Amino acid sequence: MDQQKLEKILNRIREGDVRVVSRLIRNLEDRIPEAKEVIKYIYPHTGQARVVGITGAPGAGKSTITDFLISSYRKQGKTVGVLAVDPTSPFTGGALLGDRVRMQDHAGDSGVFIRSLATRGALGGLSAAVEDAIHVLDVMGKDVIIIETVGTGQSEVDIMNNAHTIVVVLTPGMGDDVQTIKAGIMEIADIFVINKGDQPNAAKLFMDLMRALDMMQECPGGWKPPIVKLGTTANPIKYAEEIDELRKKIDEHLKFLEDKKIIEQREKRKARVQLINAIESQVLVPIIDSLEKDGTLQNMVEKIANKQVSAHEFAEEIKNMFCKKEQ
Amino acid sequence: MDQQKLEKILNRIREGDVRVVSRLIRNLEDRIPEAKEVIKYIYPHTGQARVVGITGAPGAGKSTITDFLISSYRKQGKTVGVLAVDPTSPFTGGALLGDRVRMQDHAGDSGVFIRSLATRGALGGLSAAVEDAIHVLDVMGKDVIIIETVGTGQSEVDIMNNAHTIVVVLTPGMGDDVQTIKAGIMEIADIFVINKGDQPNAAKLFMDLMRALDMMQECPGGWKPPIVKLGTTANPIKYAEEIDELRKKIDEHLKFLEDKKIIEQREKRKARVQLINAIESQVLVPIIDSLEKDGTLQNMVEKIANKQVSAHEFAEEIKNMFCKKEQ
Repeated sequence: MDQQKLEKILNRIREGDVRVVSRLIRNLEDRIPEAKEVIKYIYPHTGQARVVGITGAPGAGKSTITDFLISSYRKQGKTVGVLAVDPTSPFTGGALLGDRVRMQDHAGDSGVFIRSLATRGALGGLSAAVEDAIHVLDVMGKDVIIIETVGTGQSEVDIMNNAHTIVVVLTPGMGDDVQTIKAGIMEIADIFVINKGDQPNAAKLFMDLMRALDMMQECPGGWKPPIVKLGTTANPIKYAEEIDELRKKIDEHLKFLEDKKIIEQREKRKARVQLINAIESQVLVPIIDSLEKDGTLQNMVEKIANKQVSAHEFAEEIKNMFCKKEQ
Repeated sequence: MDQQKLEKILNRIREGDVRVVSRLIRNLEDRIPEAKEVIKYIYPHTGQARVVGITGAPGAGKSTITDFLISSYRKQGKTVGVLAVDPTSPFTGGALLGDRVRMQDHAGDSGVFIRSLATRGALGGLSAAVEDAIHVLDVMGKDVIIIETVGTGQSEVDIMNNAHTIVVVLTPGMGDDVQTIKAGIMEIADIFVINKGDQPNAAKLFMDLMRALDMMQECPGGWKPPIVKLGTTANPIKYAEEIDELRKKIDEHLKFLEDKKIIEQREKRKARVQLINAIESQVLVPIIDSLEKDGTLQNMVEKIANKQVSAHEFAEEIKNMFCKKEQ
């Protein structure tokens, strides 16, 4: 792609051209090489947006919180981008329905852009696509970018590494409560939300969480994750007020990051994850693609399955085939 | 390592030397090169064990089910190996406590070998370590190997690909029930368990699950995942009987796989995952290690964090540094 075309796309993104942005994000999901070129080109124009990650078990109410948060930010005059990540369907793919349902609430508001991303089965592909999509929404001029994802596996922790502020949503009575979130997420949470806080076990969850937080090491700079309690959307006015409180806590956290210069550390953490993902997609994926194309991979798989040769032995062969000596 | 030493280790593993096996598994977790050599050497002696995967949300009762399953298999005269995978602690590392607690139940029974594995922060490292540990327990002569893991992210799906039979454990009242497990796991389940089936919402979960199963495509060969309902360990005798039922369903599934020659397909699926993991650990990990050693990675991370250069641009550079041209 020539300079001129790239510049044109950059300008379209900056103007907030939804069609251009949507197509670009789709191409990123599909790993179209041109889309990567665009990211390389627009990357120096990123860095303005603040990224908020919202994570929690399925059914914890993340989407509702996101929807109310959008309204809360809009009242502040802030523009919002949302990336709803569905890492769940390596098999079924796509999260289109969700998109369509969710677009309705904020349809016609050009200050809001919502997109769902799903895996397409690639190695680390989702995390890479999320990263790049964040860059796009950043250049698009969105003040706040919310990434919403189910939080348990390593890939979700990776995705959350893209956020400046990580909000972990819990609900009472989901399994063993605090134990449910020991999944590596506890350590990276900046703010906890107890959603459906009107339910009977909410007080217990609150106490358990307090105790767990007391036992944790303090964050660098002295941030102690606050716990925000939300009620139910059956009372939408009260719920919206509670969400405003959550928004304020997020603002406080961002201010804390900026004051304490911690934001630079977070940027570095993000950069590291980005780099490793990029290496994965530029080194590993082409190797596998090329082995697949001429049937070599299938032959190897056959021999491994028959217990003739171990995967490690083939991997060494592959290393010699594709990698330069002096490693 | 010379042939003679490898042969000696092979024999030790076959004799069931717990010390040798434990050290080997620890070395695999730590990615000690010699451990990989051992795997390459012993690999042709694998293929006897049947691998059962047990997955489900945290707090679903997987450990209890595993413990009872061990007893059920032991009554049948079968030896059992267990790998409890804790993908949750990239931050805290280690699952030693869990090991020690769990060893007690079957302590002194040489027909049972239990080990916990945790990530050590490596890319795909856990999945690779699990794979290799399965080979070790296989050569050790364990008839059944149970892999137990929290099931939601992609890495857990990868781990489950090592199993011949995949058991998904659900409990009533955990979030949105069936929605909770849409996480790519629904599609790969061979048997569903409703644990804590004495709880009020169990019947609803059962119905929801039935409906979801009816909507799914049939498995190759016509296996329809059965649903096994378990009560509570408050009634241990009844619970043990119910677990016996589960064990029978697992046996049935294995028989089905063998009769229909589907086991070969599963072996191929496993082999593919193994190969890709091996490529990852032999190609990607050394590249990152070497970039890290001389500070190149840190420099790159700095420039990405400062929005000077995109991760993709560096990844291309890295590709040119480490990979041969004709890809």
